[in-house]
Amino acid sequence: METVTVNLGPRSYPIFIGQHLLTEIGGLLRERAFQAGRVAVVTDSIVGNLYRDTVVEALTSAGFDPFVVEIPAGEEHKNLAWLAFLYDKLIDGRIERRSPIVALGGGVVGDLAGFAAATLQRGVPFVQVPTTLLAQVDASVGGKTAVNHPAGKNLVGAFYQPRLVVIDVDTLMTLPKREFVAGLAEVIKYGVILNADLFTLLEEQLARFLQLDSDLLTFVIKTCCQLKALVVEEDETESDYRAILNFGHTLGHAVESATEYKRFLHGEAVAIGMAFASHLSHQRGLCSATVEQRVRELLKKAGLPVDIPKDLKGEYLLFGLTTDKKRAGGKVKFVCLEDFGKTRFEYLDMKEIGTYL
Amino acid sequence: METVTVNLGPRSYPIFIGQHLLTEIGGLLRERAFQAGRVAVVTDSIVGNLYRDTVVEALTSAGFDPFVVEIPAGEEHKNLAWLAFLYDKLIDGRIERRSPIVALGGGVVGDLAGFAAATLQRGVPFVQVPTTLLAQVDASVGGKTAVNHPAGKNLVGAFYQPRLVVIDVDTLMTLPKREFVAGLAEVIKYGVILNADLFTLLEEQLARFLQLDSDLLTFVIKTCCQLKALVVEEDETESDYRAILNFGHTLGHAVESATEYKRFLHGEAVAIGMAFASHLSHQRGLCSATVEQRVRELLKKAGLPVDIPKDLKGEYLLFGLTTDKKRAGGKVKFVCLEDFGKTRFEYLDMKEIGTYL
Repeated sequence: METVTVNLGPRSYPIFIGQHLLTEIGGLLRERAFQAGRVAVVTDSIVGNLYRDTVVEALTSAGFDPFVVEIPAGEEHKNLAWLAFLYDKLIDGRIERRSPIVALGGGVVGDLAGFAAATLQRGVPFVQVPTTLLAQVDASVGGKTAVNHPAGKNLVGAFYQPRLVVIDVDTLMTLPKREFVAGLAEVIKYGVILNADLFTLLEEQLARFLQLDSDLLTFVIKTCCQLKALVVEEDETESDYRAILNFGHTLGHAVESATEYKRFLHGEAVAIGMAFASHLSHQRGLCSATVEQRVRELLKKAGLPVDIPKDLKGEYLLFGLTTDKKRAGGKVKFVCLEDFGKTRFEYLDMKEIGTYL
Repeated sequence: METVTVNLGPRSYPIFIGQHLLTEIGGLLRERAFQAGRVAVVTDSIVGNLYRDTVVEALTSAGFDPFVVEIPAGEEHKNLAWLAFLYDKLIDGRIERRSPIVALGGGVVGDLAGFAAATLQRGVPFVQVPTTLLAQVDASVGGKTAVNHPAGKNLVGAFYQPRLVVIDVDTLMTLPKREFVAGLAEVIKYGVILNADLFTLLEEQLARFLQLDSDLLTFVIKTCCQLKALVVEEDETESDYRAILNFGHTLGHAVESATEYKRFLHGEAVAIGMAFASHLSHQRGLCSATVEQRVRELLKKAGLPVDIPKDLKGEYLLFGLTTDKKRAGGKVKFVCLEDFGKTRFEYLDMKEIGTYL
């Protein structure tokens, strides 16, 4: 088992990464000074079917008194109505100020349960058990919790740090391949923007990674968590520097929005956005053609899309960019690339962006 | 104009207290580095009728582009449904990450708008303009925001500090007398638990205070904010010490609950709770009979109730105490009195509490 510590002063917490950790979750919680008592396990209908019994048994045998709240699987349930449902169930289940809420699942479960934990009684302990590659490398560091609003994704939320994160890489064995690959897009992102060694490792060991080699998964996930932790430790509430994590997300969000969040998984749209950001970085003379090509090639070899679909009209994408939360003064802020591990913010007007689409 | 600074590191903020401040609110916001642009003013139907035009004009003439969101007056609207309504209106009104939300009203408006500000886009700037005495001396320090849940008051909420607080004592001229007196209960509480001089001042100047002398109001409100700030600075998220502010609230909540929040205003129930806590402090030999008598007398002279109504059965009150959030290990935590400005926590079992009812 590997451990990464996210250092945020009084809100610091450990991430445990390894195999067979679901069965050890009771002990891990006890070690973190949670008293035996009520624990809520929030999960979705799919992950719940796979792992709820394992987790309930592990908690029970460590002396806890767990109960499970299940949300239907799917992003469309990450909203205020299901949040209200969750509050009801947590209160019915007699969650108190010291009772932990365990989120067992992917990003939707983590975001929703995390926001409920952040706000129930003004904050109860939160434990994340992410079961998708995306949630393991992204949601486990940073404390972003949220629900969607009809007007936009994640419009209602809070920064709220978990007390601990337990990443059992075995859960990736049951993750649909397409979702695994979409998560890999974010893994590649960390290599591109923060660490050339990670990028090279992924180039060299891609096949082994796609075959779910446990040791390699553990090492890579650990590295991603460490890299993201360094960024978040510098800028916990995203006032500036943390925005480098949006590499590929600016156009990615516009692609998701223009396709109504139906055609692409988040990681797939981000892959298109990363190829685009690398392209415009090269076009603006910020990075070499080699950097652009290597980013593009690794994404393609991983099985990710890199081209903006031909049927997506430029004006739809530009409209998506104008409503992006990160815009400033009519220009759009892009995370651009100078080299692997070296980024800079660039502000582009719509006309220039249009020429690259 | 008087200023109290609440020192919470990067979350520090000033409280401005004085006359005619509603008309100066635009300038006060500009001085706090808010850029001219969209501002939401959240208020209720009663306070809105009285002051919305003044505030909108003050903001407009300082270069802001304000819009008003009105919630029906009354605690029954401090819930998740009206929170969702508020999110919709704020998003419709194009609130962005740097756009301030101004809460103009009493505790309900402040709690609801504050929670919306805490969670919209994971936090937008929040400005409090409390217009009741209770909100001025209580809600303006501490950053507690919340909505009610059918299962209990303030069950969903967040700790979220405002960027500034503007207290215009002139707004107290339009506050119903009964509400003013209920707010006075919390003022007296600060004297009892934190500052003997304030208590003596209130004993001596009660008539002038009840006549709404502006200078005295300003001085007393400033003193209360300073006293509460010292407590909150020590313990921002109520892990321990801050609980002394619950003096009178343990039984007070049980009285409110047993009368279904209909018979007493919050401050009135707290007055009964303070008389009770002083009584049991004396009975347990912690404070003198004189201390108990002076607390009781000042509350009565202020026009507040001090006796538990005879028709309220002891068992109802005891039931209310068992569901109190502050209970621990079967005993109920009371804030007790040793002298003016000197408190201690005591844990009483139900049997002993029953003997004092």
